[in-house]
Amino acid sequence: MEIVQVLHMNGGVGETSYAKNSLLQQKVITMTKPITEDAITKLYCSKYPEEIAIADLGCSSGPNTFFLVSELLKVVDSVRQKIGQKSPEYQVFLNDLPGNDFNTIFRSLSIFQNKLRKQLGPDSGPCFFTGVPGSFYGRLFRKNSLHFVHSSYSLHWLSQVPQGLESNKRNIYMARTSPPDVLKAYYVQFQKDFSLFLKCRSEELVDGGRMVLTLIGRRSDDPSSKECCYFWELLAMALSDMLVEGLIEEEKLNSFNIPMYTPSPAEVKYEVVKEGSFNIDRLEVTEVNWNAYLDETDLSDAFKDGGYNVAKCMRAVAEPLLASYFGEEILDEVFRRYREIISDRLSKEKNEFVNVTVSLIKP
Amino acid sequence: MEIVQVLHMNGGVGETSYAKNSLLQQKVITMTKPITEDAITKLYCSKYPEEIAIADLGCSSGPNTFFLVSELLKVVDSVRQKIGQKSPEYQVFLNDLPGNDFNTIFRSLSIFQNKLRKQLGPDSGPCFFTGVPGSFYGRLFRKNSLHFVHSSYSLHWLSQVPQGLESNKRNIYMARTSPPDVLKAYYVQFQKDFSLFLKCRSEELVDGGRMVLTLIGRRSDDPSSKECCYFWELLAMALSDMLVEGLIEEEKLNSFNIPMYTPSPAEVKYEVVKEGSFNIDRLEVTEVNWNAYLDETDLSDAFKDGGYNVAKCMRAVAEPLLASYFGEEILDEVFRRYREIISDRLSKEKNEFVNVTVSLIKP
Repeated sequence: MEIVQVLHMNGGVGETSYAKNSLLQQKVITMTKPITEDAITKLYCSKYPEEIAIADLGCSSGPNTFFLVSELLKVVDSVRQKIGQKSPEYQVFLNDLPGNDFNTIFRSLSIFQNKLRKQLGPDSGPCFFTGVPGSFYGRLFRKNSLHFVHSSYSLHWLSQVPQGLESNKRNIYMARTSPPDVLKAYYVQFQKDFSLFLKCRSEELVDGGRMVLTLIGRRSDDPSSKECCYFWELLAMALSDMLVEGLIEEEKLNSFNIPMYTPSPAEVKYEVVKEGSFNIDRLEVTEVNWNAYLDETDLSDAFKDGGYNVAKCMRAVAEPLLASYFGEEILDEVFRRYREIISDRLSKEKNEFVNVTVSLIKP
Repeated sequence: MEIVQVLHMNGGVGETSYAKNSLLQQKVITMTKPITEDAITKLYCSKYPEEIAIADLGCSSGPNTFFLVSELLKVVDSVRQKIGQKSPEYQVFLNDLPGNDFNTIFRSLSIFQNKLRKQLGPDSGPCFFTGVPGSFYGRLFRKNSLHFVHSSYSLHWLSQVPQGLESNKRNIYMARTSPPDVLKAYYVQFQKDFSLFLKCRSEELVDGGRMVLTLIGRRSDDPSSKECCYFWELLAMALSDMLVEGLIEEEKLNSFNIPMYTPSPAEVKYEVVKEGSFNIDRLEVTEVNWNAYLDETDLSDAFKDGGYNVAKCMRAVAEPLLASYFGEEILDEVFRRYREIISDRLSKEKNEFVNVTVSLIKP
């Protein structure tokens, strides 16, 4: 399974699309906004550059793609207005893997640009958008061509399924029942990928350039901790039930593993220090409830069911991955069962994703 | 009708896609290669830049998108090997209107990149690809950020249907029966669009930057000359036949006009000189037979029919435009009739597109 070819959020704007099921990711962008704002303000105020090149890595396709960009530009524009600076020109690079639905982004771009123009005022500089298909575990941009890099809810995806997971039967991710060599294999892959990511970005960022990264992670030192593995364990449970009923082959399930790693802040810090290109400005942890609609009001009945919301959110993210492995025909059933399991758990306990955010500067 | 939203080549890789029906455009790129090669060689040898940013405007989606880029890179790589220079890094911007099928380009990118890497040899610099959605009748890139701009078979498309074409009934483009005010309206729109294009590109290109543009045009001074209008006249004939049979509304046909202009070399030169940002290095005219498969051997039977080939080629180009105006349901019938008409004409006369190519330098 070539992750680069397979991994992408559900495209289009339909019922199961990521565009329609990404409130959770939007909440995370909002929660981490103080860190992002702080970083872009410091970047702008250090040199008042005439042009700012911003890359959003793992931009996906949907409202969040533009939400983050508009927040960043509004911050810069507000600062430069206060101090009476001429507006910079903006270059925005939207990156994701080639399977991402760039067409949908591009076709909604003009509406977004018109809206942005109004928000920024008439004397703000032009903003040029480009789409950049490719894996961020490799060079994507020219040397010294970026000022600011942002990535939210993408870097926990690994470049490949770690090797040596044969003993992780019936699990699809690290779990409390995973043997130590499985945990080790996952960690080694994370270290390799994350340090390669840092190296590539350090070549692409100008001196003084900044980077804000948010990953799903954990507070605990234990990589198989419930706080970061439980949502996959419950999906494994749905798949196992289907195995028992003969709907999935045992061999298939035993060899399926999610190419993800959910690091602790300490692990992130360790890689940054070891790689050596960046200084850490901030390193923070936040939590967001699995059910993004929990505090929303005026919900239609369907959205009042947390299981429904979480299953839809996870489906928009994991469907292409599962479909490529198990086939499309099992998806409805998998996520129906997953929804039921989640509903049950949410009625008994509070479950949150842990977000690790790191703000870096290339000195 | 918003041209920016409507105009694009047929997407995907299916039977009527542009990707499968663009041999003609590829032939034109091949024919004009000596001019393109000359320009990129001069650009490279004037400064041996460490990075080269290339934009292909109106890149469309299909083999031609990559064909042109690989030709350009091979030229630079061959020159720099001969003189023992370290390879530059390449940045390639693929531009087209937002309706273009960028997903298909992006998903075939890794195959192309692997092939390119082999062609260029191991010590050639990395090549970064980005997609840039938007109209080239406006700024698309940052100031002084491009070294080389290429555009083939795109710039004859206008930014909008000219105003004041009410008297061009039954014609869908300039024709021998078009009144003078129609010819004037088309020319005015071309002047406005082409000079805006030059102005925008002059802001984006570095000093010494170069641009090679190929448009469908004409040799004659007469804008309604057969050499540039006939292929639309024959399509108008197919539409008129359907009008007579009640398959198309009269009002619809009378108000439909193709947003295109096919200039003479003199008209191109006049705009370049008037706008003032560029010097003309070369200005040349070539011809290509309507039937791109004419000199091909080992053809299956279908391709032996010139009408079939021309109709398919024109359909890949004009289908989205016609569909947005007349509705999709008439398309099969329009192009069936068009094929018959073309077959008949090609059996009696030789018909060619005239290509005007201009090679420009920003001094």
